[in-house]
Amino acid sequence: MRDFSGGHEWLSINTATVRKQNGVEQPLPVILDACARHGIRAVSPWRDQVQAVGLAETVRLLGAHGLALSGYCRGGMFTAVDAAGLREARDDNRRAVDEACELQAACLVLVVGALPGALQGRAAHKDLALARSQVRDGIAELLEYARARAMPLAIEPLHPMYAADRACVNTLEQALDLCDALDPTTGTGRLDRPDVAALGVAVDVYHVWWDPKLEAQIARAGKDRLLAFHVSDWLVPTRDMLNDRGMMGDGVIEIARLRGWVEAAGFAGYSEVEIFSTENWWKRPADRVLATCIERHCSVV
Amino acid sequence: MRDFSGGHEWLSINTATVRKQNGVEQPLPVILDACARHGIRAVSPWRDQVQAVGLAETVRLLGAHGLALSGYCRGGMFTAVDAAGLREARDDNRRAVDEACELQAACLVLVVGALPGALQGRAAHKDLALARSQVRDGIAELLEYARARAMPLAIEPLHPMYAADRACVNTLEQALDLCDALDPTTGTGRLDRPDVAALGVAVDVYHVWWDPKLEAQIARAGKDRLLAFHVSDWLVPTRDMLNDRGMMGDGVIEIARLRGWVEAAGFAGYSEVEIFSTENWWKRPADRVLATCIERHCSVV
Repeated sequence: MRDFSGGHEWLSINTATVRKQNGVEQPLPVILDACARHGIRAVSPWRDQVQAVGLAETVRLLGAHGLALSGYCRGGMFTAVDAAGLREARDDNRRAVDEACELQAACLVLVVGALPGALQGRAAHKDLALARSQVRDGIAELLEYARARAMPLAIEPLHPMYAADRACVNTLEQALDLCDALDPTTGTGRLDRPDVAALGVAVDVYHVWWDPKLEAQIARAGKDRLLAFHVSDWLVPTRDMLNDRGMMGDGVIEIARLRGWVEAAGFAGYSEVEIFSTENWWKRPADRVLATCIERHCSVV
Repeated sequence: MRDFSGGHEWLSINTATVRKQNGVEQPLPVILDACARHGIRAVSPWRDQVQAVGLAETVRLLGAHGLALSGYCRGGMFTAVDAAGLREARDDNRRAVDEACELQAACLVLVVGALPGALQGRAAHKDLALARSQVRDGIAELLEYARARAMPLAIEPLHPMYAADRACVNTLEQALDLCDALDPTTGTGRLDRPDVAALGVAVDVYHVWWDPKLEAQIARAGKDRLLAFHVSDWLVPTRDMLNDRGMMGDGVIEIARLRGWVEAAGFAGYSEVEIFSTENWWKRPADRVLATCIERHCSVV
């Protein structure tokens, strides 16, 4: 297991973590500046942030700062109530793949979607099996498109508390079952990058820490399916189901133990910090948040 | 699958559902009166409510109203930081078994506990594997005590969002793995009741509806491990992680589909309504809540 205590070369910042400072939304260039100032080598930006500044300008800024993308956040949301909605999702996901290629992202992270309309507070139906079937079909179709562009897709299982409205893939086992069904060829050669599969997973400790089968499923995933590793912490109590994620070390997740498992399976990429925190970190200056991320990366992750 | 549309003979009320009316805590006799008034045949009372009125008086009231217990709520909370804490949990759980016997409960429901101290807002440690090991040992020990008294124990897997503070058994598969490990003899004759296992599960749709392996695990459980079936609904959005459970039909759980699965596996007991709802049902009169439970039992469950 890599020793992180001496530096933060394997720290990546998901830009959601500092999307607000002092409670105010920050444009991506400000966030990238701040990351560069702290000697951070990688980020994972959100599509809306990239779109606001423009893809070409984002590419330029990343180059100027020497920032890599540990992932691009995010594709998915495959479910819909009708064929038009499914087509719209397909087209939007293809654009996400194209953008990820321009940005030279390590992978496109997929938050797969769930019951259509639920995120807006009114589910169009309750048929979770149908949603899961649409997700499977959506990934299958996108995979062909992404494979041709050598952009790995990382299915991110989300915590079961998001099964209704954000993602109906809720365990690592379920995500890997999808990988094995849709991308059965293991080994090298499927992309121009022999080190990773065309379809893999993003392991976010916040979403999976509770899973009694986690260690076994991480081992099953192996090096070529483990495309991303995200860190934050589960607070007790958790006061908001979306925007109360903790800084590493402030909650109950054994983050270093989990990192040991992904590294034992062969993962050697970034630990990407992804925190949503309306009442805490988003209220603070970005410099303070990033300094804490670095300190905790070295002492906790 | 039984037809519930014509009546509510298979409706049970977990007394938490009406523990408050008009926002005010209600004593158990008032709750039992209300249930009897609505022609309800079974309840599942909480230990604190029983203790407040006394065990003998509760037995008398149940008899006077002709109310059965679909389960007794609850034992568990097996984890602790030291040997004294573990002993205390053991002794308290034995008392819970004794009470369940006096009350002639169908089973004692186990909410197994998680990281010690987390429920009070400060986890004593983060070692989930240790907590799970204490739970296993605690159930194993209690099982011998309960078996001798012919009181079935029902492990209730809780939603993964409670893994830190309430229960570190979070999927039906995990609960059944425990059953198979601790109570491997299947079939009849282990209790004086040939119809059920000494160790089984309580399937609460609120906790398990999201699980991609749910149907298969319910089938695996089978008639003798399926000791209880609890209903409520998952609201979108869910505004509180504990006390925002929905009335059946107000959320996104396909309750009838899930009941179909448990009945296909052989379960033929009560559908026990268990709702915690600070901002909605607990603010209303108990008669209104029970009338709605009955209506939804017939139309939704």
